Amino acid sequence: MKESIKVFAPATVANVACGFDILGFAVENPGDEVILKLKPGSGIKITKITGDEGRLSRDAEKNTVGVSISNFLKHIDSKQGIEISLNKKMPLGSGLGSSAASAVAGVFAVNQLLGMPMSQEDLLPFAMEGERIACGSAHADNVAPSLLGGFVLIRSYDPLDIIRIPTPKNLYCTIIHPQIEVQTRDAREILKKQILLKDAVIQWGNVAGLIAGLMKSDYELIGRSMHDVIVEPIRAILIPGFEDVKRNAKEAGALGCGISGSGPSIFALSKDEKTAKKAGEKMKEIFADLKIGSDLYVSKINNSGPQILD
Amino acid sequence: MKESIKVFAPATVANVACGFDILGFAVENPGDEVILKLKPGSGIKITKITGDEGRLSRDAEKNTVGVSISNFLKHIDSKQGIEISLNKKMPLGSGLGSSAASAVAGVFAVNQLLGMPMSQEDLLPFAMEGERIACGSAHADNVAPSLLGGFVLIRSYDPLDIIRIPTPKNLYCTIIHPQIEVQTRDAREILKKQILLKDAVIQWGNVAGLIAGLMKSDYELIGRSMHDVIVEPIRAILIPGFEDVKRNAKEAGALGCGISGSGPSIFALSKDEKTAKKAGEKMKEIFADLKIGSDLYVSKINNSGPQILD
Repeated sequence: MKESIKVFAPATVANVACGFDILGFAVENPGDEVILKLKPGSGIKITKITGDEGRLSRDAEKNTVGVSISNFLKHIDSKQGIEISLNKKMPLGSGLGSSAASAVAGVFAVNQLLGMPMSQEDLLPFAMEGERIACGSAHADNVAPSLLGGFVLIRSYDPLDIIRIPTPKNLYCTIIHPQIEVQTRDAREILKKQILLKDAVIQWGNVAGLIAGLMKSDYELIGRSMHDVIVEPIRAILIPGFEDVKRNAKEAGALGCGISGSGPSIFALSKDEKTAKKAGEKMKEIFADLKIGSDLYVSKINNSGPQILD
Repeated sequence: MKESIKVFAPATVANVACGFDILGFAVENPGDEVILKLKPGSGIKITKITGDEGRLSRDAEKNTVGVSISNFLKHIDSKQGIEISLNKKMPLGSGLGSSAASAVAGVFAVNQLLGMPMSQEDLLPFAMEGERIACGSAHADNVAPSLLGGFVLIRSYDPLDIIRIPTPKNLYCTIIHPQIEVQTRDAREILKKQILLKDAVIQWGNVAGLIAGLMKSDYELIGRSMHDVIVEPIRAILIPGFEDVKRNAKEAGALGCGISGSGPSIFALSKDEKTAKKAGEKMKEIFADLKIGSDLYVSKINNSGPQILD
């Protein structure tokens, strides 16, 4: 049995324009790294966190990774002692599923370290408990794609029903993260509790179109369906320059563009790497004009989920 | 060139539980028959209508078939005279797309008769104009599947974006039509104009699940996704015995069950013919107990659309 393991888990784009609260996908870059060590005796201890500017709790009972692992160990009735070291390699509060990536890396790593007592898919509820600590509710639209890779549909929470959606081979994602912060809780509170039925019909037409486009590898249909009439019009006001970034991405050839999760990151999908990079440059220009620093990531859709690094 | 033609166009189930206003599919039975004859000179004349108990207008300018054909002829700039004979072989006001089937049979027939100046898909707007005469609005969720066959997604009306959804080979449909009438206009007016965002999220999760289930041939997923939290709870009150019919269908092994279009017909989907027939018997029992006469139809999903009979 290995005594320690280093695991990468990917960042994720939740909502994907029209699929508010039900859809997400994983990217290859960025993501988080967790190093776990078996320690003598019981208890979970966080030994080190880098890249968080001191913002995450070092108390294992209040930390996303600690809580996920603790729930997992309780479930398999283990009192194994664990030491956690977390390298945040992506921005916090960015709308890229930062806490989900940490939680997934943690539960994936501990499951590996203990000889895989559970299947990868069955780890989901434990990572969701980590999300609850970070966001106040146990959402799955970041955790599920980070854990399973690819595009993932959360059809239902009660009971939990997670469906992998096959995606076209050459689908690339551009992500731009403006260095401003939007709290998930705030981004949720500004949404209207009631919406017009006629808008909902437009939305679920697009959701259906997006799923069909992904499964048919119909890039144009994917693009036509990436249209959100419910959430984006409200949340876009929290992101300076959003409309210009979106216009630039589409003018550069991206299929579609939207807010990643609750923002402020913005993502675009393209049908090849060259277009994805060009879209990224054009998106970055807007934030440069606004004197807002930004991080740019371009990668394929990540179809494998977490990865053992060491 | 043929001087006359006889065409069948299929009945359709719109909405399909969760897909209000965006989804529909065609069945093999029932449907409508239209016989068209070229006549000397110009003008459209309805010579005969059977099976409507005298309820449809014999005035070509106020009749679904007449209006559809008239729009088509105008578009191709033809003054060809046409005689229409319509055999209604399905109940009116049943929620089975009765006017759509007539309109589709009409435009399909006239296009054939005139040497196919247009592609089958491009006939859609003319049949939609026929729908407008019958229902007050140019909906496509019956017309499109009747014309194209199979499951059809209407992703958007503006611009019109119609997508065929591949379906599993052995998907069977049971339809029960209780002999009561629900007006489409009434069924639309009782809907709430505003809905809860959290209900909409449940709905579009199910829409996504239904599309994925159809395309993956995952019968269980199709069944789990056939769940409507927005429209069915309101419209079900217009159909006596609805909840019992639905329970019986599912107990008989149907994957799912819902209101067909705006009702009062109720449909169920099953993964083989035997189950579809058994579900039908059990559904019929409820209306028999309520002393309501009913018509039962069991068929495969119709993947070909209209058919030339003669």
